[in-house]
Amino acid sequence: MSNPPFSFQLEARQGRARAGKFQTPHGELLTPVFAPVGTQASVKSLTPVQLMDLGASLILANTYHLYLRPGDELIAEMGGLHQFMHWSGPILTDSGGFQVFSLAKNRSIDKDGVTFRSHIDGSSHRLGPEKSISIQENLGADIIMAFDECADPYDKAYSKLAMSRTHSWAERCLQVKTRSDQALFGIVQGGIFEDLRRESAGFIASLGFPGIAIGGLSVGETKLEMHNILELLDPLLPDDKPRYLMGVGTPEDLINGVRRGIDIFDCVLPTRLARHKAGMTRYGERLNLVNAKYARDSQPLDVDCQCYTCQNFSRSYIRHLIIAKEMLSATLLSIHNLHTLIVLINDIRQAILAGEFDNFVGQYFQQRTFLGLDENEK
Amino acid sequence: MSNPPFSFQLEARQGRARAGKFQTPHGELLTPVFAPVGTQASVKSLTPVQLMDLGASLILANTYHLYLRPGDELIAEMGGLHQFMHWSGPILTDSGGFQVFSLAKNRSIDKDGVTFRSHIDGSSHRLGPEKSISIQENLGADIIMAFDECADPYDKAYSKLAMSRTHSWAERCLQVKTRSDQALFGIVQGGIFEDLRRESAGFIASLGFPGIAIGGLSVGETKLEMHNILELLDPLLPDDKPRYLMGVGTPEDLINGVRRGIDIFDCVLPTRLARHKAGMTRYGERLNLVNAKYARDSQPLDVDCQCYTCQNFSRSYIRHLIIAKEMLSATLLSIHNLHTLIVLINDIRQAILAGEFDNFVGQYFQQRTFLGLDENEK
Repeated sequence: MSNPPFSFQLEARQGRARAGKFQTPHGELLTPVFAPVGTQASVKSLTPVQLMDLGASLILANTYHLYLRPGDELIAEMGGLHQFMHWSGPILTDSGGFQVFSLAKNRSIDKDGVTFRSHIDGSSHRLGPEKSISIQENLGADIIMAFDECADPYDKAYSKLAMSRTHSWAERCLQVKTRSDQALFGIVQGGIFEDLRRESAGFIASLGFPGIAIGGLSVGETKLEMHNILELLDPLLPDDKPRYLMGVGTPEDLINGVRRGIDIFDCVLPTRLARHKAGMTRYGERLNLVNAKYARDSQPLDVDCQCYTCQNFSRSYIRHLIIAKEMLSATLLSIHNLHTLIVLINDIRQAILAGEFDNFVGQYFQQRTFLGLDENEK
Repeated sequence: MSNPPFSFQLEARQGRARAGKFQTPHGELLTPVFAPVGTQASVKSLTPVQLMDLGASLILANTYHLYLRPGDELIAEMGGLHQFMHWSGPILTDSGGFQVFSLAKNRSIDKDGVTFRSHIDGSSHRLGPEKSISIQENLGADIIMAFDECADPYDKAYSKLAMSRTHSWAERCLQVKTRSDQALFGIVQGGIFEDLRRESAGFIASLGFPGIAIGGLSVGETKLEMHNILELLDPLLPDDKPRYLMGVGTPEDLINGVRRGIDIFDCVLPTRLARHKAGMTRYGERLNLVNAKYARDSQPLDVDCQCYTCQNFSRSYIRHLIIAKEMLSATLLSIHNLHTLIVLINDIRQAILAGEFDNFVGQYFQQRTFLGLDENEK
């Protein structure tokens, strides 16, 4: 399988951790990379300029949401997602599978896809592998996902059935894909079950995708279970393809993922926390800025942070904005939270390139212990 | 009365229209000027960088709101309003009078001030001339306002009583003011009544304020009545002091105000329209972007506009953001709406400096007529 605009080059590795470059039609991604989530073609409360300024390189958008509203055909007419949302860097779209299973109503699943009702207006829709690819081709992201089914990670019978449908859909997605300027990633499923994960990794790896996503994690299982699955998968996945851990995560999740061979992450956490009035720090602390103790706190949210928010505004001001219900609070907290994760992932990359990643990890978890944070089953 | 950091210099005039420079401790204001409103120490949905980029020079903040939340003493402890909201340019605060009369509950007015209940939590408060100055000194704006009473503009007995209280309070504000780095403006009241307005202008002008505000307009009277009052006031106000028309206005209001001798304007309209999903154009048109006709409209909101929003986003995208309830819609529309008014006021200034303001006004209203807009009783 040839993907002319896409090439993945590993620059350095330490243990399972990898630093690389992934070429896309909208620029080169330096990995490991963390993608802010722009569910509805907007990273909530931020302009593209603010995203660029805080260091974002890859943005994720959701196929399920954009298919329902404003519609993938409308976005295609408007020149595609890059032009529509004015993001000139790489974009990744998911397959819609996860949202159909987590948000939509009245689902009925069969071997060809899912019939469901929209969570917005109750209208009836059908999504399957062919339709997911057709939508994603209309949206025009650089990286697109095969349609998959995410099961209850503890239900073995369902996990097995969902996995086998995911495998069949992966083949069908490959068959119907037409655009050469999009890299289609296959998705490994299998819940927390080692035998299923092994089988899924083997099958998906055999199809020759230019990248592999790991689905069905961070959906209710423990961190230890997630780490075990990642360690199991690492040797089974092609070494020369980027690996994407979907929907993860926290600052410590990024480190724990990279240590187990992951190259790409995305998560709504930083922008969701921002709207729920919390700042996050590099070491995974969460500051609830509504707390009265910040009312007269003239310090920045994070004294060590170089972001626009921390360089210019106090905890006192941000707390005031939250209490006064000013939209700017979400903007300032989103800038800080995203910047924190992006700086962390960039520092991880530099540590791998410098051959100092083991020290980096040791110091990171030492600091978490010092701060009284759970060591997160490292 | 000496105000060392403040000086107002007229550079050019045409008819009653004036172009000038007003020196403040936080920089020079080029007049005429339009001030975006940051009621609660935030121009809604915008960062200070975005405000700078769209051309804002003077920002207004509301004494009533900031006194109630987070409190003027807290803001003073945090270094004052400039530092708190990170705005390094000039700031103007109103006196709190207008909001007490329009927002607060259970008001009781006497010769020394107003007792009222907070619209936020029902708590009881007292605001009068001395307290208003004390709050405004804590906030630390460059331009502050004398405490005034805004009456029903059509009720002559009440307008007369409110005016006489406003005059007494103006004297008391001057007496208690202590900071030399703040310019205190007196406020002319008197409703739509020519005799009252004459009396008020004469009295307020006699007190030697470094600037004069015109209150009690744009509160229910017709445009024609507003214009008549402005024409009446022009020769009665000191020529060498800036004149500020409070709470005005629309694009055509700016032109109509400058034509009648006004130098400073502020209005919530551009940011309020933005949150209510409307874009405004230079000529006063309003685009309700929820309208289905914009769903597939790839044009910018205003094809002639150079703002960040119009340079990079389509009506289709902004409509999508509104319908999907994305906060970014308010940000993009606020950028456009404020930019529109600020470019207009800058163009007005340039026309006055070039001696072409009469032509400018003629062409402006010709274009409004061409667009089928009411000529606004010019």
